[in-house]
Amino acid sequence: MTRTIVASATREIIIGFDQPFCVIGERINPTGRKKLAAEMIEGNFDTVIKDALEQVAAGATMLDVNAGVTSVNPNETEPALLVRTMEIVQGLVDVPLSIDSSVSAAIEAALKVAKGRPLVNSVTGEDEKLEAILPLCKKYDVPVVAISNDESGISQDPDVRFAVAKKIVERAMDYGIKPHDIVVDPLVMPIGAIGSAGLQVFALIRRLREELKVNTTCGLSNISFGLPHRHGINAGFIPMVIGAGMTSAIMNPCRPQEMEAVRAANVLNGTDENCYNWIKTYRDYKPAEGGAAVAPAPASSSTGGGRRGGRAARVGGGAPTE
Amino acid sequence: MTRTIVASATREIIIGFDQPFCVIGERINPTGRKKLAAEMIEGNFDTVIKDALEQVAAGATMLDVNAGVTSVNPNETEPALLVRTMEIVQGLVDVPLSIDSSVSAAIEAALKVAKGRPLVNSVTGEDEKLEAILPLCKKYDVPVVAISNDESGISQDPDVRFAVAKKIVERAMDYGIKPHDIVVDPLVMPIGAIGSAGLQVFALIRRLREELKVNTTCGLSNISFGLPHRHGINAGFIPMVIGAGMTSAIMNPCRPQEMEAVRAANVLNGTDENCYNWIKTYRDYKPAEGGAAVAPAPASSSTGGGRRGGRAARVGGGAPTE
Repeated sequence: MTRTIVASATREIIIGFDQPFCVIGERINPTGRKKLAAEMIEGNFDTVIKDALEQVAAGATMLDVNAGVTSVNPNETEPALLVRTMEIVQGLVDVPLSIDSSVSAAIEAALKVAKGRPLVNSVTGEDEKLEAILPLCKKYDVPVVAISNDESGISQDPDVRFAVAKKIVERAMDYGIKPHDIVVDPLVMPIGAIGSAGLQVFALIRRLREELKVNTTCGLSNISFGLPHRHGINAGFIPMVIGAGMTSAIMNPCRPQEMEAVRAANVLNGTDENCYNWIKTYRDYKPAEGGAAVAPAPASSSTGGGRRGGRAARVGGGAPTE
Repeated sequence: MTRTIVASATREIIIGFDQPFCVIGERINPTGRKKLAAEMIEGNFDTVIKDALEQVAAGATMLDVNAGVTSVNPNETEPALLVRTMEIVQGLVDVPLSIDSSVSAAIEAALKVAKGRPLVNSVTGEDEKLEAILPLCKKYDVPVVAISNDESGISQDPDVRFAVAKKIVERAMDYGIKPHDIVVDPLVMPIGAIGSAGLQVFALIRRLREELKVNTTCGLSNISFGLPHRHGINAGFIPMVIGAGMTSAIMNPCRPQEMEAVRAANVLNGTDENCYNWIKTYRDYKPAEGGAAVAPAPASSSTGGGRRGGRAARVGGGAPTE
């Protein structure tokens, strides 16, 4: 059974097929967040602190930490800023961290100060990246996210993306890194642009799990890019990728609809034993007025609703859901 | 490709692996609805009419019609009541119907008045049932729901449930009924009682699809029996069964959270071309205050949220979801 172990100073987490889905909180990332970038450049970590605490309170299993505030000379400035950010986050919360940078020097600087066993995010199939990142993963004995693109970019062909993932896993083995320490991101395309994006990724997850025996992850919200009511698409996507065998995702845990989908899928996937976490979270749940979605017609107000005659009683679950 | 064709007087629907999920509205069923039962006994069809219109407006693909108001002498009273209910529903809405009764004489009476090509709900693996129902399905050339239990009851062993389904498909073939006219219900157990109920049904759906080449259905809400916030479990279960290959379910379409999960899964499964139905339904979606679920921590109020550095931009979907 594939098990990727990550840890903070005090807490060990297993990413694996038989484990609850690993939610990697994405919020500590200045990319596209001008206010956060400006704050971090000024040495103001108020938003970082808020995002760290909120994401853990919302149920994040791990936190991704990115300090890429600028594209100008990041080699010079990013290592120190990433180290500072890591230290602040490590001082606040006890979940394992994911070190997220495109700057190899920043990743190594962060690895030096990281407590426990962080995840490196990320390596790609590009030779230059492989040669820069894999030796670090070996040296510090840490797992790494492997993104399925290479020098030629991101292939629209899932078979090519699988081949890139396989190349990374094989190259990692050359460095003495085991497949269980590679977490493959098969790359999720926006379903609004590529109608087969869902089917592609479900098939890829199954192949990665069965053929390469690796854990998988993705940038979850990419799937809904460009569509209205993205949270609804994301919340449908989560159970489908979990059903296909995905074991983690980089996502926003402060979104109740998405986190509810994660918790439900854990119940249904058999990784929330005795529904403990579900019952604990939703024991006193009261639906919001208006519900989770538009209601094309007023919901029925009658109170019965048992279904299908004698069968329901025989199955033992025919009580109404209203 | 397996295609089960059902039809009303004017509208044909295909149940199939490459089709949008077929939502069979469960509401017109007096089982466990004392008020509805009392009304129907009195010849008052107000609630039936309301349920028919609301379910179709909410997006039901088909409607299940059950008139089992009593367990006393149903052979005498149910045929006429089912016929009357069918006629009322057929006069109101143009979706195909599912004739739901445990009384064979009622099923035949309904078949005589049904317009188009209804679905018979249901036969089991019990010999007496097979001998009563299959000849009717052959005579009227209609598809049938096959429930995976037999004289020995419902097995906890999914292999036994598969074997019962196989027996029904084979027996139907003896009567000249093709597998594409059998819609198997693998029987969904409550996950709160049987922790492996989800994994069982996902595996069964795949086997039924791959080995028997049949469409599948289930009484959807059984999965969440006994748990708090059942709609959240149901809404997570829907994308998982659709991802596993289930093609229809008997469920309450007046539940926005569940229907949203169906629509999202159709998008992700590639059966909502160009996301047309999703965009049409949610174009002007405004989330309800409080969202779809409890928020263990206040949701972040910052507006950025692009994730994972350069990757998001490369995938083309890294825009924030808030």
